Amino acid sequence: MRNILLTICYDGSNYHGFQIQDNALTVQEVFQDALGKIVKEHVDIKGCSRTDAGVHAYMYCISMKIESRIPCNNLVMALNRFLPKDVSVLSAQEVPIDFHARYSCLGKEYIYKIWNARIRNPFMEGRALHYWYPMDINSLNEAGLNYVGTHDFTSFSTLDKREVKDMTRTVTDFKVEREGNLVIMRVRANGFLYNMVRIMVGTLIHVAMGKINPQDIAEIILCKNRKYAGPTAVPYGLYLNKVFYSEMDLKKNDV
Amino acid sequence: MRNILLTICYDGSNYHGFQIQDNALTVQEVFQDALGKIVKEHVDIKGCSRTDAGVHAYMYCISMKIESRIPCNNLVMALNRFLPKDVSVLSAQEVPIDFHARYSCLGKEYIYKIWNARIRNPFMEGRALHYWYPMDINSLNEAGLNYVGTHDFTSFSTLDKREVKDMTRTVTDFKVEREGNLVIMRVRANGFLYNMVRIMVGTLIHVAMGKINPQDIAEIILCKNRKYAGPTAVPYGLYLNKVFYSEMDLKKNDV
Repeated sequence: MRNILLTICYDGSNYHGFQIQDNALTVQEVFQDALGKIVKEHVDIKGCSRTDAGVHAYMYCISMKIESRIPCNNLVMALNRFLPKDVSVLSAQEVPIDFHARYSCLGKEYIYKIWNARIRNPFMEGRALHYWYPMDINSLNEAGLNYVGTHDFTSFSTLDKREVKDMTRTVTDFKVEREGNLVIMRVRANGFLYNMVRIMVGTLIHVAMGKINPQDIAEIILCKNRKYAGPTAVPYGLYLNKVFYSEMDLKKNDV
Repeated sequence: MRNILLTICYDGSNYHGFQIQDNALTVQEVFQDALGKIVKEHVDIKGCSRTDAGVHAYMYCISMKIESRIPCNNLVMALNRFLPKDVSVLSAQEVPIDFHARYSCLGKEYIYKIWNARIRNPFMEGRALHYWYPMDINSLNEAGLNYVGTHDFTSFSTLDKREVKDMTRTVTDFKVEREGNLVIMRVRANGFLYNMVRIMVGTLIHVAMGKINPQDIAEIILCKNRKYAGPTAVPYGLYLNKVFYSEMDLKKNDV
């Protein structure tokens, strides 16, 4: 038995997130279908996170235990042959048998794209939020700094029956940058609550609109109440960008 | 009567080119539909060029004569409200009454995008040709330099009954650049024959593959025979990028 870590990349426009669902197409489903054409065994697939419908991934990680001896490089090529064109496998490598894409994950980085111009960009449709009023990057960064640190992020999460335990997460980085008309928010943390990034972004949109001040963010965190934060920003501006694991786990390299 | 020049931008994936057709959706059709919701007169629309199905435009120009006194800025906003999200109007301005988007055009610039990596990029699907073998930018530039100048480009055109006259065009610029895994070919000319850019690109792909040498391009031009050039590259890598008019025509500015 081998344990394989795969990194994939996908445009989430046509999918209801990663995790398999009844009555809705998911990335996991098309991945399993492609895999079924290559290996003739039942394979249990572990994704690094749930993602919502419409959310994209520049890097998403999957771990799976298989009996097949197919070399990792061949597995990448074969999967890409059978996957739809909006999903691609970037790499595959063997990892220790107890590695788990989700539970072994040390942290993740998301980016959120905002097309900030009066006129919409046809090439950013379904790939960025369109916000047409001016955005002051300095005040957004000032606001975003309040996210950094170890906090109870209850105010920045959607109630979810599956999420019952600790609401504390450590955000290590939050930066806002402008590249022309594109404003990119980048957040790195050891873990994220359900809808956490999208609510963080929606709250910064309220800062941009002048509805709240940058320094209000600290207080919103302290309230531990969803109603004080801003709206949940649209899913299609969100990209899972990086997934971090221990170097020990990735040592047994086979790409 | 006013003559209005509009610049628009569109993702061509869902359209059979600009020019109106029976039984196929075109950009002109959705534009006319949107315009019909704003002005109550028949408007004759002139596009700056025919474009093929799947071809994109960062800048495409339209001229039209209208009686309506709607200010240009309001026209832009109203059109964007009624257009589908993969088409947007960037600007509108009044131009001299004899201006014509196609006949007044002094030149155009196209770019062609190639995703040059072993693994396809889901975010470039329908937006770039995928070519996975190495491309030597220097030899492509050496080859492309042969396109520059005033030549009979018969070898680089698809036979077209509408195209009966002079096959001579002046290419003023041809450059190939790499931005990471993206290779961008950029060509500027006073005019283009049917499929000219796509055949120029397809011929450079033959250079990249080693099927022909960079210096063979000059001879292929001299042959004046389509069969010596490379294949017509896929339409979806092609973007109309700039359209040039005389400053005299654009002087009467109203944006």
